Amino acid sequence: MAVPTSAFSITLSVRMDNAPGVLGRMATEIGNIGGNIIGVNGFEAHGPTVTNEIIVYCRDEAHARKVVELTKGISGVQLIEAYDRTFKMHEGGKIEVISLAPVRDKDDLSMAYTPGVARICMAIHHRPELSFEYTIRKNTVAIVSDGTAVLGLGDIGPLGAMPVMEGKALLFKTFGGVDAFPICLDTKDPDEIIETVVRLAPTFGGVNLEDIAAPNCFYIEEELKKRVDIPIFHDDQHGTAVVTLAALVNSLKIVGKKMEDLYVVIAGVGAAGVACAKILMSAGVQNIVGCDRQGAIFDGRDNLNFAKEWFAKNSNSERKSGSISEVMSGADVFIGVSGPGLITASDVRRMAKDPIVFAMANPDPEIRPEEADGLPAVMATGRSDYPNQINNVLAFPGIFRGALDVGATDITEKMKVAAAKAIADSVDDDRLSPTFVVPSVFDRDVPYQVAQAVGEAALSEGICRAPVALYT
Amino acid sequence: MAVPTSAFSITLSVRMDNAPGVLGRMATEIGNIGGNIIGVNGFEAHGPTVTNEIIVYCRDEAHARKVVELTKGISGVQLIEAYDRTFKMHEGGKIEVISLAPVRDKDDLSMAYTPGVARICMAIHHRPELSFEYTIRKNTVAIVSDGTAVLGLGDIGPLGAMPVMEGKALLFKTFGGVDAFPICLDTKDPDEIIETVVRLAPTFGGVNLEDIAAPNCFYIEEELKKRVDIPIFHDDQHGTAVVTLAALVNSLKIVGKKMEDLYVVIAGVGAAGVACAKILMSAGVQNIVGCDRQGAIFDGRDNLNFAKEWFAKNSNSERKSGSISEVMSGADVFIGVSGPGLITASDVRRMAKDPIVFAMANPDPEIRPEEADGLPAVMATGRSDYPNQINNVLAFPGIFRGALDVGATDITEKMKVAAAKAIADSVDDDRLSPTFVVPSVFDRDVPYQVAQAVGEAALSEGICRAPVALYT
Repeated sequence: MAVPTSAFSITLSVRMDNAPGVLGRMATEIGNIGGNIIGVNGFEAHGPTVTNEIIVYCRDEAHARKVVELTKGISGVQLIEAYDRTFKMHEGGKIEVISLAPVRDKDDLSMAYTPGVARICMAIHHRPELSFEYTIRKNTVAIVSDGTAVLGLGDIGPLGAMPVMEGKALLFKTFGGVDAFPICLDTKDPDEIIETVVRLAPTFGGVNLEDIAAPNCFYIEEELKKRVDIPIFHDDQHGTAVVTLAALVNSLKIVGKKMEDLYVVIAGVGAAGVACAKILMSAGVQNIVGCDRQGAIFDGRDNLNFAKEWFAKNSNSERKSGSISEVMSGADVFIGVSGPGLITASDVRRMAKDPIVFAMANPDPEIRPEEADGLPAVMATGRSDYPNQINNVLAFPGIFRGALDVGATDITEKMKVAAAKAIADSVDDDRLSPTFVVPSVFDRDVPYQVAQAVGEAALSEGICRAPVALYT
Repeated sequence: MAVPTSAFSITLSVRMDNAPGVLGRMATEIGNIGGNIIGVNGFEAHGPTVTNEIIVYCRDEAHARKVVELTKGISGVQLIEAYDRTFKMHEGGKIEVISLAPVRDKDDLSMAYTPGVARICMAIHHRPELSFEYTIRKNTVAIVSDGTAVLGLGDIGPLGAMPVMEGKALLFKTFGGVDAFPICLDTKDPDEIIETVVRLAPTFGGVNLEDIAAPNCFYIEEELKKRVDIPIFHDDQHGTAVVTLAALVNSLKIVGKKMEDLYVVIAGVGAAGVACAKILMSAGVQNIVGCDRQGAIFDGRDNLNFAKEWFAKNSNSERKSGSISEVMSGADVFIGVSGPGLITASDVRRMAKDPIVFAMANPDPEIRPEEADGLPAVMATGRSDYPNQINNVLAFPGIFRGALDVGATDITEKMKVAAAKAIADSVDDDRLSPTFVVPSVFDRDVPYQVAQAVGEAALSEGICRAPVALYT
């Protein structure tokens, strides 16, 4: 049974009799049906009554409704209002656009707006590169989605995708100090998406593509990289790939294996699976087999889109075929970016010695740690409630922070590998263990270590804009 | 000669000898060449020297350079650094995207992002109207420009336009509490602009079109009003028209004339001129003649684009022809939205009794107040340094505030007229005078009076989305 969580938490605003035992009765009754009280705020006595707000973690929406109904019937307690804390938090959206220049009087107005602003406009008109110094391009990234592959929810469209993109903007700001703005597009046509982003490019310093379904996402990213001179990064691909590589680098220290010697099975050949394969190849892995729903992907198989075609040509040189169970035999590493419950303990048992299992399907992994019978030498998931959470937020805020800081015009393979190395290195040798191969997503130093490494990689590749002499 | 202003102000960071008379010498020398010192900050004595920052208003960039050069030569003064205050203010852009939800720990993350966010996504997916409650659409407007008619600078492109759009976002936030985000597009094709805005619509609660050249702006606005269900408003047209109508309503109280009896000449038949004509017609004005560079516009004239064609068909029923000077004879009102120095005192002298002159070309009006020989009964300009500044900022923040507050799906003629009336009414009868027909742009009450009036008008027209029952 699911554990009560903040995701399904409610606030009960109640008026209780000002008498001993009333709170105890209420707390006990809520506890009896599995509601977890995690806060009681704002006790205010008003003569014979006390008002307060009780925060209850519930298991799901139905459970939350049950807690509300129960509360209505507790003697000595009057329910004033009950609200869903998650919905409350999202009311009016999760980001705000604020002003960085005061507009108190004529003098302010004539610097921030007319006539003074005309001087900045003309300077940029004559030297377009100044746009990266005198407009929000210096620190602002678009988070672009068409809503076709939102979390595990699928194609829920641009309106449904907005809360996720706003959430992503929060993460950009909180962890990387990057201003990010959601752009959800009312089109699924890849060429229209490309066109639109090309037209939007003068507004932004970079573009994070998000939750766009494969295989369109590959084509869109590739074309945009050619057509605009600001960094383009599809996080579902590369964010996942970077953190996976970081986790693998540290896992290999534990099991004492080398990239060149690994046999890796990747379950799921969508955006994340393809990017994981690519980054592992640039890190030296030579033997990879990818699987989709139909089983192993090999050169000449049917039902291959252009991305899987690439995969087939560039992996599985032995042309293994068969189900995922079959090809997992002898594998050193399993990387799951597919769906829940795909593999079993017996699959893991047939892997090579000291198997590494990254079961990253969200929210339900390909195999839960408790189902793996303690077989993996290292086990990681995408979840925060197990050890070794492989989460993109370790990567993307730092990658864009670094790229913006050095004026990078692209995000290259070298920059991604540098990011992975920085994440891996952020785990000191004395903290490294099978249950700690990646840092916590709340370790606020990591994004800045990533930014530093990414910036250095970009500079060493010579892909940065020349610094502009500012007007002084 | 131009007056020194903040738009051309510089900061001189200097190290002066710690001795009597040094500051006096410096201030005198700067004053001698016309630099206006408006602040001396941060006096810090370091033994034999004192460091401080001197703020100087200059006339233009050349003058600022002259002040800097002069400073280098003043004895006892060492220039550490000189910078342009306007450029400094614009560094890194003028707006910031901040987070409204904390992300301190797992519980925060699981409400603001996964897995909690999925509940908001699905709620919106099933009931799209919830996007106006649970995303930034509730309070966020796009400021869309193609950079083809930026201020009086002309077609300087999307990069050059960005500082103005960011400035506009400041004004939206400061005066209307509206979150606004600049979107500068790398296309001038009206159909591509329309397409792009249609695709962006899921992200925003409204669209303010800005600095798009006529006649494309008319077509773009008209099409977008048909194709999206959020308010579309081209400020260069309607912002100007609304404030012009407000100023005219109050001016008529002074001269004792009626809308129906007026003969109005409009100089400039671009975005603002056409919109002024339309709003005056809906306010009851029957006799309008518009002029472009070629002179009066009448039905059957050559060189008419589709907007001027409309103008020709719907005004100048007497089919007057000739130069602006000729048609101004007998006019009650002159409205200038064209260029500098277009009319003379002798033109004003030939107007009807108690002429009203709104010379709004920016930064240099069609006729300066001091050139009008005191002839107009009421004289207004677009400038902040003369009485009666007709400035859009009196209108657009309140109009969008009102539209968003009531969930309006459009901004209608009635809403615009209501806005104009609210602006006019904000000038009490006892404050009303020939030099005070419109309130100050810094009167922070005005946008909220406008919002109230606009919201009521929208509700009375029945164009608002039904209130949605929130999850509670």
